[in-house]
Amino acid sequence: MSPLLAEIIGTAFLIALGDGVVANVVLSKSKGQQSGWIVISMGWAMAVFVGVFCAGQYSGAHLNPAVTLALAIKGSFSWSLVPAYIGAQLLGAMLGALLVWLCYKKHFDASDDAAGKLAVFCTAPAIRTPWYNLLTEFIATLVFILAIFYITKPTTGIGSLDALPVALLVLAIGLSLGGPTGYAINPARDLGPRIMHALLPIPGKGSSDWAYAWIPIVGPLAGAIAATVIYNALQN
Amino acid sequence: MSPLLAEIIGTAFLIALGDGVVANVVLSKSKGQQSGWIVISMGWAMAVFVGVFCAGQYSGAHLNPAVTLALAIKGSFSWSLVPAYIGAQLLGAMLGALLVWLCYKKHFDASDDAAGKLAVFCTAPAIRTPWYNLLTEFIATLVFILAIFYITKPTTGIGSLDALPVALLVLAIGLSLGGPTGYAINPARDLGPRIMHALLPIPGKGSSDWAYAWIPIVGPLAGAIAATVIYNALQN
Amino acid sequence: MSPLLAEIIGTAFLIALGDGVVANVVLSKSKGQQSGWIVISMGWAMAVFVGVFCAGQYSGAHLNPAVTLALAIKGSFSWSLVPAYIGAQLLGAMLGALLVWLCYKKHFDASDDAAGKLAVFCTAPAIRTPWYNLLTEFIATLVFILAIFYITKPTTGIGSLDALPVALLVLAIGLSLGGPTGYAINPARDLGPRIMHALLPIPGKGSSDWAYAWIPIVGPLAGAIAATVIYNALQN
Amino acid sequence: MSPLLAEIIGTAFLIALGDGVVANVVLSKSKGQQSGWIVISMGWAMAVFVGVFCAGQYSGAHLNPAVTLALAIKGSFSWSLVPAYIGAQLLGAMLGALLVWLCYKKHFDASDDAAGKLAVFCTAPAIRTPWYNLLTEFIATLVFILAIFYITKPTTGIGSLDALPVALLVLAIGLSLGGPTGYAINPARDLGPRIMHALLPIPGKGSSDWAYAWIPIVGPLAGAIAATVIYNALQN
Repeated sequence: MSPLLAEIIGTAFLIALGDGVVANVVLSKSKGQQSGWIVISMGWAMAVFVGVFCAGQYSGAHLNPAVTLALAIKGSFSWSLVPAYIGAQLLGAMLGALLVWLCYKKHFDASDDAAGKLAVFCTAPAIRTPWYNLLTEFIATLVFILAIFYITKPTTGIGSLDALPVALLVLAIGLSLGGPTGYAINPARDLGPRIMHALLPIPGKGSSDWAYAWIPIVGPLAGAIAATVIYNALQN
Repeated sequence: MSPLLAEIIGTAFLIALGDGVVANVVLSKSKGQQSGWIVISMGWAMAVFVGVFCAGQYSGAHLNPAVTLALAIKGSFSWSLVPAYIGAQLLGAMLGALLVWLCYKKHFDASDDAAGKLAVFCTAPAIRTPWYNLLTEFIATLVFILAIFYITKPTTGIGSLDALPVALLVLAIGLSLGGPTGYAINPARDLGPRIMHALLPIPGKGSSDWAYAWIPIVGPLAGAIAATVIYNALQN
Repeated sequence: MSPLLAEIIGTAFLIALGDGVVANVVLSKSKGQQSGWIVISMGWAMAVFVGVFCAGQYSGAHLNPAVTLALAIKGSFSWSLVPAYIGAQLLGAMLGALLVWLCYKKHFDASDDAAGKLAVFCTAPAIRTPWYNLLTEFIATLVFILAIFYITKPTTGIGSLDALPVALLVLAIGLSLGGPTGYAINPARDLGPRIMHALLPIPGKGSSDWAYAWIPIVGPLAGAIAATVIYNALQN
Repeated sequence: MSPLLAEIIGTAFLIALGDGVVANVVLSKSKGQQSGWIVISMGWAMAVFVGVFCAGQYSGAHLNPAVTLALAIKGSFSWSLVPAYIGAQLLGAMLGALLVWLCYKKHFDASDDAAGKLAVFCTAPAIRTPWYNLLTEFIATLVFILAIFYITKPTTGIGSLDALPVALLVLAIGLSLGGPTGYAINPARDLGPRIMHALLPIPGKGSSDWAYAWIPIVGPLAGAIAATVIYNALQN
């Protein structure tokens, strides 16, 4: 499988399972309705686990433009591949969101709550204050990317369990720093599904909240840059 | 232990622990009553973990006709063994359901809810719309089987932890895509216990809902075929 | 550390952390009050994890007379050591229960519920029907011990993670088969703390329910015998 | 990265993610509000996981003066480094608490509950009885440190998963022994953030409860000493 295909498939898995858990918790009549933050954060963590072990051996499993940017700045990834990787991640995220919509079609139809329908696709702040929301995404992604830099790979072949540390890291971020903004920490995770929300014929779907869309792009990218700067400073 | 015995034992463990967690959550007066989706999805994931580590070394631990079919199409498993494997899985699933009924006998007696009693054995849709229910089972199984193809085995012997990735994959599927239909993603998991529901003398048990029974058979098998086709296309 | 000391320490850890989670969930004013079955079952699973990794290298970490009995019948453990191991397990369980009582002393004082205070120490059935309660403990322990026989040890040194499969197995049992009787599956786990309940000066503690005490002894031991018989039959 | 920098960064991660989960559960309008003890205890466990895998290779990842003290008494760590390590841990804890305050700034503003705001930073007893609170912290830390001594390192390189046993140990402690005092088991975890609570301009923040502050310092240090004494006695 080519790296770009792997980024598409891996990100599609990430979003199908990540947006899926939000659909399960938020939409009407779903079996997991209102099952709480442990389900949300564990669902996203396991989504990362699956996406990363599927794509890992083919593309390095970035699945996130913030990761791609950080690795390029750090010198571990070629700048020339950055645009294609980000494009593949966006495409994969849109594909994953489509799968969630198809899976939960009748639950979208049964729900009255436009904000809940949007929440399946993309993040929204608990308290809308752009600069603080941006700060939260910045800090959460900074912690996320900086910690990724310290993940050490196994020297023996433990197979797919190699994807567990990053999944548990995302579990940590979600449980702990996800409260204010829903922890995008990944521009593709937010923008790709938001585009799908705008495109898909979802009854009673309301606005796609484009006014907020720049925050889960700029915050994570800035956090990734800061993490790389800090990492380089600490290593010297 | 012969492969067929291993499939029987492994699937019996899968269903004893999987149907068991539903009994715990759904039946009256149980200590885990109404303990929510995290308990359901974690219970099924750990049921997979136990079933897979027990049967793995003897039969490859399919425990699921969709897995057996996918491996046969992919060329990794002999077609001549498929019928016997599926038979063993069905038998094991029936045995596991029997154990759950025995374990929770007095709680079945204490419950008034016929739908809840059926839910211990087999899946039912949250919103009954056959084609969309089929689509959900199709997509969930497609994601499940495609991801299984990307699981890499450890090259060093890490023992029973080798079963963890598939367990966490099922955790992901359950948390995220299980909301509409209760994620059968396995024809034996649904049909075997449904037969037991029909056979066992459960007071006030109501219908075994045979009208729905084809969906968790056809959906997962079709999803397995699609996953194999996609996997082969992606690898070339 | 001698094997018997290791069984004492390991079982003390098992019960301090296992009975501890019940105290946290059941007793008045505790920070984890009424936090549900996921906390109970995860707490016991992690208690097993800690007890097993501490004692494993010194005694094999039985921590449970049903395990000791099963290994002796199977021929993997010397019958001459059985009485001392079981004595050590009981002693460790009593020590662990003492630690829980000391930790939660003021919460025992603040609670009015005599049944809840007893529940911290030992199991009680959700529906009191001795033969069915016995059957539940028998089946749960049968599944537990039979699965233990299929756990394969890592061939490479993965350290304390080696204890994870048995911990996740206990998580599975608790989530799934723990609803009717609270899954003793271990005579020492129930009897040792029950003795402490009888001995300790707990205000308003009520009866130690000795009428039930034989069930979490006989059920697990019978389940262990049955599991060994089945395992031997399956291997031949 | 130097060991002291690693202790700062690792403890900052520990507290950013640990205090973060309390903020998520306790503060008004957060997405994880009132999501319960499983979220709290899993959040702290994953915080330990991240802190330990980041700092492990550089400083041994103590992140806790009780650990540093225990290792020094045991003879595994130079006494001359103890003061600097503890200073680094305190500094890291303060930095982590600052990140949580920035992340959750608007939720601190939106909350009316002064006790909840303090709870984000440091521990408070469920029932205020100093000697019993001290006893609980003593016992919880004794179990924690004694179990740490029995953790065996992998002999093969499994990478960051090497940090999982200590994280699951903290999960066990939190689920089981955390009910009465909120399980500081780490003087830096409590004192560092408490200082930040006193320093930061948090509206309506109330007292920093200095009367209690000695307990999560003295209890864990005494527990660490006792654990080391017991460990040495058991090994001989």
